[in-house]
Amino acid sequence: MTHPFDEALQLQRLDEHTLQGQTSPVYDNMVGPFGGILAATMLHALQQETQSQGEPVSVNVNYAGPVAATPFEIRTQCLRSNRSTTHAQAQLIQDGQVAVYASAVFARRHETWTAQEQARPEVPAAAQCPRQRLDVGPRWLGAYDMRFIEGELKLDGQPREDTSSLLWVRDEPPRALDFAALLAMSDIFFPRSFIRQQQLGIAGTIALSTHFHATAETLARTGSQHLLARARGQGFRRGYFDQSAQLWNADGELLASSLQSVYYKG
Amino acid sequence: MTHPFDEALQLQRLDEHTLQGQTSPVYDNMVGPFGGILAATMLHALQQETQSQGEPVSVNVNYAGPVAATPFEIRTQCLRSNRSTTHAQAQLIQDGQVAVYASAVFARRHETWTAQEQARPEVPAAAQCPRQRLDVGPRWLGAYDMRFIEGELKLDGQPREDTSSLLWVRDEPPRALDFAALLAMSDIFFPRSFIRQQQLGIAGTIALSTHFHATAETLARTGSQHLLARARGQGFRRGYFDQSAQLWNADGELLASSLQSVYYKG
Repeated sequence: MTHPFDEALQLQRLDEHTLQGQTSPVYDNMVGPFGGILAATMLHALQQETQSQGEPVSVNVNYAGPVAATPFEIRTQCLRSNRSTTHAQAQLIQDGQVAVYASAVFARRHETWTAQEQARPEVPAAAQCPRQRLDVGPRWLGAYDMRFIEGELKLDGQPREDTSSLLWVRDEPPRALDFAALLAMSDIFFPRSFIRQQQLGIAGTIALSTHFHATAETLARTGSQHLLARARGQGFRRGYFDQSAQLWNADGELLASSLQSVYYKG
Repeated sequence: MTHPFDEALQLQRLDEHTLQGQTSPVYDNMVGPFGGILAATMLHALQQETQSQGEPVSVNVNYAGPVAATPFEIRTQCLRSNRSTTHAQAQLIQDGQVAVYASAVFARRHETWTAQEQARPEVPAAAQCPRQRLDVGPRWLGAYDMRFIEGELKLDGQPREDTSSLLWVRDEPPRALDFAALLAMSDIFFPRSFIRQQQLGIAGTIALSTHFHATAETLARTGSQHLLARARGQGFRRGYFDQSAQLWNADGELLASSLQSVYYKG
């Protein structure tokens, strides 16, 4: 049986640089699909364009318009490639309009000294934290097992001064981690504006940039275990806020960091 | 007299979507120009493509290859535009190859509630901090007035556990802040790998994403005062590290936040 994540990422080749796909209802958000699944789909397309030319290090995804539940095309282009890095970009086109566009840098990584400054926060193991069960909310929430430690969306209307959230997360059902899934999880967080106000408003990501600290080896070692995910808004002003995030595996290895720009209202 | 920053950003129009420019020796780095001036040049080109369709909110710049001291072309394209946002991208092409490419989201911002979670660190005023004078180093350093509070590049070969740097910075000579200058300053930091090892190595940014909290009003209020800039590496692994940064004005307003992906060796 194909995992719902892989099913959502299925793309059909139309020509050398064009793929066709369609959103999966499993990842439906309030309007259109969960941004993380679109990011993963863009990376999946870029990985096909640049096949076996290294691992993704940096991915940028911009959201320019809604994506409907009808087929879309993704056009990919390799911009530059040498022995160590490959740069590529992609556009998701629906009804003749660019809805999502992305770029990625792939690298053949080399041995260097290693250091980690963002230590994984000390928290109880995932097995000791109860899984969040939301009776309401968009369908994509069911595609993840989320276990909040702090910064839940309580919707009690009591504004919070600090929008930090910390949670364990993995695919539901479990699935061995790969770069596409890790990218999707870097977008797993509720909008920081909702957390700040503790009420639902309008919000939509316009840009997501994710840096992968994980290599293929780290991913293999991590497998289908829960990741610890942390996000925080740094500033909210005149319709846009940013969100800084980090993801670690249970062993404390930093797997990814990201910065988002998000539209908000209310 | 034209400010060296504006001189470096001068572009000649070749056709509706193509501009021609050339690097300025004032911003020379070890190899090629300072990445921040290239980012500013890309934003300047994108602002011309999307003129009067809002202020930049999110900019992503990727560095794919070296830029030589010969003329280059920048090709710009508007991807999508509606009443509130405009998405555009650009490529800097030299010798038939893409050397830098960028995307930006511009928005007509609206009134909302406002909040700032990243408070400006409490530090002595810029006037009370001595200006850093480097006898060696690339020429672009002379284009900025930098006053370090912590995390200097001492080159004493004593590795540090924490790569946080904090400094006051402004253009030298002073210049009223605009989005292009703010973007350049979000790339002002020495590579975190140099700070970590306290020795020179090889490093080069492959991706820079900057979120603007500043609006045109904030910029006007800030003028040519020093900005407080902070950067920190979160993880260094197999040839790539990331860098998270924030910039505030003297009044404590968060102006920009950014995430970089950087290649390193040694």
